[in-house]
Amino acid sequence: MEAYEAIMTRTSVRSYLDRPIGDAEVRKILEAGMSGPSCANRRDWSFVVVRDREMLNRMADANGRPAAPLRKAALGILVCGDLQKAFQPAPDYWIIDGAIAAQNMILAAHALGIGAVWLGTYPQMERVRGQAALLNLPEHIVPHSVLAFGYPDPAEDGPAREKAYEADCVHFETW
Amino acid sequence: MEAYEAIMTRTSVRSYLDRPIGDAEVRKILEAGMSGPSCANRRDWSFVVVRDREMLNRMADANGRPAAPLRKAALGILVCGDLQKAFQPAPDYWIIDGAIAAQNMILAAHALGIGAVWLGTYPQMERVRGQAALLNLPEHIVPHSVLAFGYPDPAEDGPAREKAYEADCVHFETW
Repeated sequence: MEAYEAIMTRTSVRSYLDRPIGDAEVRKILEAGMSGPSCANRRDWSFVVVRDREMLNRMADANGRPAAPLRKAALGILVCGDLQKAFQPAPDYWIIDGAIAAQNMILAAHALGIGAVWLGTYPQMERVRGQAALLNLPEHIVPHSVLAFGYPDPAEDGPAREKAYEADCVHFETW
Repeated sequence: MEAYEAIMTRTSVRSYLDRPIGDAEVRKILEAGMSGPSCANRRDWSFVVVRDREMLNRMADANGRPAAPLRKAALGILVCGDLQKAFQPAPDYWIIDGAIAAQNMILAAHALGIGAVWLGTYPQMERVRGQAALLNLPEHIVPHSVLAFGYPDPAEDGPAREKAYEADCVHFETW
């Protein structure tokens, strides 16, 4: 798929076929996550890759109602920030670096024909604490987002949300 | 360019040819920014598009030493969060939504043959206040990141930074 088309045609996919995602695809998705920029090149993230059905269900339990797609997903990836690696003068750049990694992974999956939906975790601290406890994370590793992946079930997913160009959001030279 | 290749070959480009970026390309970059997911589909961002040389220099002044590439860039885009549109139960998702938009724009530019570098603004509050004052932003619009764009000058840019797969950052099923 052409790169610009991939960016423009990505939508949140919440219904999946009962079809596993192979190790080669998982590796490509992770490599894409690691190829984004990060503040001062600190690469201040970590990833927990989950394919066990029971664990995916428990991740869904910990991530609020919108996380239901995880229960049918073939793969879940918890993107985390690593506060020990974060840029010390402004460590909160980890939030941006994690988002870059996550978006790269979602786009890479789309390019591989794999659907995904982004399930927000940080800054909803109950979800953050829930994922950290479930996955036994050390103190310096902070849950950022859960991504659910699976081959799309076109029969089940609803229409994509609006992605129109919003001229009101664009200002030229100054506000 | 193929989508996966675009993700993997993107690097930060800091040296540019003296060549303008046309309106069609600017529009495509902005559309890419608006096509990412956002928390609860709030689309809580805004963009200030700058091509005026003096304004680009003043944006560089307000964004610290790493912002020097702006002084030669053909285009700068200030990505902002819009706190009035943000998801009210957890408004700080605006930080993630802005990062998604920015990474989409950088990847779209790369696909168009345009180089870019991400210049961190938020959460370095001196930079945030500087951009807000310079661009006359309303109170609810928060500077997130400055992106510098230009056609790459291959004679001047140094070698790309390391993007290796880091096995230590990947955990399977649990930490």
